[in-house]
Amino acid sequence: MTTPQPGQHMAAEIAAQPSIFSSLYASRSSIAEVAAIIRERAPRFVLFAARGSSDHAAIYAKYLTEILLQLPAGLVSASTTTLYGAEPDLRDVLLVTVSQSGGSPDLLEVTASYRRRGALTVAVTNTPSSPLNAAAELSVDVSAGVEHAVAATKTYSATLLALYLLIDAVRGGNGSAAASLGDLAQVTLDASAPSVDEAVRRYRFVDRVLTTGRGYSYATALEASLKLAETSYLAARAYSGADLLHGPVAAVDGETAVLAITSLGKGGDSLRDALDVVHQRGADVVAVGSASEKVGATLSISIPETAEEVAPVLEILPVQRLAHGLALARGGDPDSPRGLNKVTRTL
Amino acid sequence: MTTPQPGQHMAAEIAAQPSIFSSLYASRSSIAEVAAIIRERAPRFVLFAARGSSDHAAIYAKYLTEILLQLPAGLVSASTTTLYGAEPDLRDVLLVTVSQSGGSPDLLEVTASYRRRGALTVAVTNTPSSPLNAAAELSVDVSAGVEHAVAATKTYSATLLALYLLIDAVRGGNGSAAASLGDLAQVTLDASAPSVDEAVRRYRFVDRVLTTGRGYSYATALEASLKLAETSYLAARAYSGADLLHGPVAAVDGETAVLAITSLGKGGDSLRDALDVVHQRGADVVAVGSASEKVGATLSISIPETAEEVAPVLEILPVQRLAHGLALARGGDPDSPRGLNKVTRTL
Repeated sequence: MTTPQPGQHMAAEIAAQPSIFSSLYASRSSIAEVAAIIRERAPRFVLFAARGSSDHAAIYAKYLTEILLQLPAGLVSASTTTLYGAEPDLRDVLLVTVSQSGGSPDLLEVTASYRRRGALTVAVTNTPSSPLNAAAELSVDVSAGVEHAVAATKTYSATLLALYLLIDAVRGGNGSAAASLGDLAQVTLDASAPSVDEAVRRYRFVDRVLTTGRGYSYATALEASLKLAETSYLAARAYSGADLLHGPVAAVDGETAVLAITSLGKGGDSLRDALDVVHQRGADVVAVGSASEKVGATLSISIPETAEEVAPVLEILPVQRLAHGLALARGGDPDSPRGLNKVTRTL
Repeated sequence: MTTPQPGQHMAAEIAAQPSIFSSLYASRSSIAEVAAIIRERAPRFVLFAARGSSDHAAIYAKYLTEILLQLPAGLVSASTTTLYGAEPDLRDVLLVTVSQSGGSPDLLEVTASYRRRGALTVAVTNTPSSPLNAAAELSVDVSAGVEHAVAATKTYSATLLALYLLIDAVRGGNGSAAASLGDLAQVTLDASAPSVDEAVRRYRFVDRVLTTGRGYSYATALEASLKLAETSYLAARAYSGADLLHGPVAAVDGETAVLAITSLGKGGDSLRDALDVVHQRGADVVAVGSASEKVGATLSISIPETAEEVAPVLEILPVQRLAHGLALARGGDPDSPRGLNKVTRTL
């Protein structure tokens, strides 16, 4: 028996992602069966319910829904149901509840309540036996395997991919943009290692980190911010590239580290103006993504190019490594951040 | 002629809010006319488009919509329209665009595009002559008068009140919960002055502030966070009381200042658990709201009790004073935060 090393679970779970992506893609027909039922029911509005990392996956899926399915979409404020007892008419509504554990009581209550009120309910979880799967009419298994580290890594990225495969199948696609994500994830992890190490050294003593992204990559910026906050206790905050210029840019100065997620495509293109402004204000910019070498960054962490709508599946990988490495460098254990539990029991 | 004093515009605009609330309430019949048209068109789904402070007002309105109108609601991601050209079917959708200036090009584009695609569009602005008012089918004037300080104060609170009056009228109400908000706002400003001064002293050297609230008060927590970030350059971040326990609580320690918004009602009640946890972790808790004396806080900034759904209109007042006082105490000018413009031209 060996003694557990700090962060060993998180490291192993980060490393497992390439094969998880390949397996999930290979078994996409089961997701397509769920998609076929959604297509048949032809929802007019799509709502997502989630918390924490899963909420960021839901935001990614909201963009996919609006752009690929051409349907209006929103995020559920759980408390309007669980605290205030709202009971809207939900016919023609698709509710997608996203939760790796499938065990959050408030999401369970929202799902059961929405189903009673006429919504088509789909649970996207990593725990097929969960109460949430039982409460929803349909289920998608993200198939990431048991996650031991408290900070979500492989369950987050696998959830992104499962949501992409689901939404693409609803529009009649075959997931082709995701076909090589497994291989590309391995390339991403291998090729980004030196620049991630450099970013860890650079952020060793940082206190204030701002993350930003636009379009699909906004979800990555949100997840990056949470990952740094929960593993390295940083005051990290995420802004969309558009919101950043609205007010928060006032707080950006030479002591601010900006982690910018920028991939080739419309979202990355539109982030350049905001990055120019923060760069002019003296901020240290680390750019992550397939467009990272096209912006004025102090350090670029490059990843391979993909279709823009699946870029978030890869973008998060070096960020997870950064969070892991930084937590270790700062003397923490990323497997067991202080004060965190795996399932949050919010009522 | 007198020399302009730092923060004089923001101070005057904060002080003007009681009379603005009274006037807006008195002229609510013009808002009720807009509401009557919305009622007649009977939307099934409500979307809000906004940025910055107006986005927080939109979140408040989303709660009102779900709870008071029993309609599902969501927030628009502008970039799916402006960058990715999404063109969803928006029949039966009500789009409410919230912008004090009515001049943001991306919100204008979203509103024009949604209107073409069948949505009933309503502009809620402080500038009746704005391009946004022209682009939308219906308009609500928040009637706060010209705002000179860059940080929004009176336009934010007046927008909250206008949205309340609008949504309450859509359900057939007469705005009765808002009848005395003008008087109560004056009481709030007068009575909270000493505790706000104490909070300014307490936060003089703080670097890391976390704001939190639940239910309706979550909007206040978001706005508090932005106000502190843009006037005092603090790394302030807002979490709903539920999300706080999910991960971010790991970053809370004895060096964290927690500004908790807690008013009497279901939202405030449900925040207590989260506040107990952050208190146990050694955080300094300043509580603002009508339930602020019922939680374990280091300092309480009390406000008069109202119906829970209008509490955010008052909760923000001492927070604005705190942001103003803190900016001055730290040597800044809250009227002209570095790097900010009044209208953000995002494309």
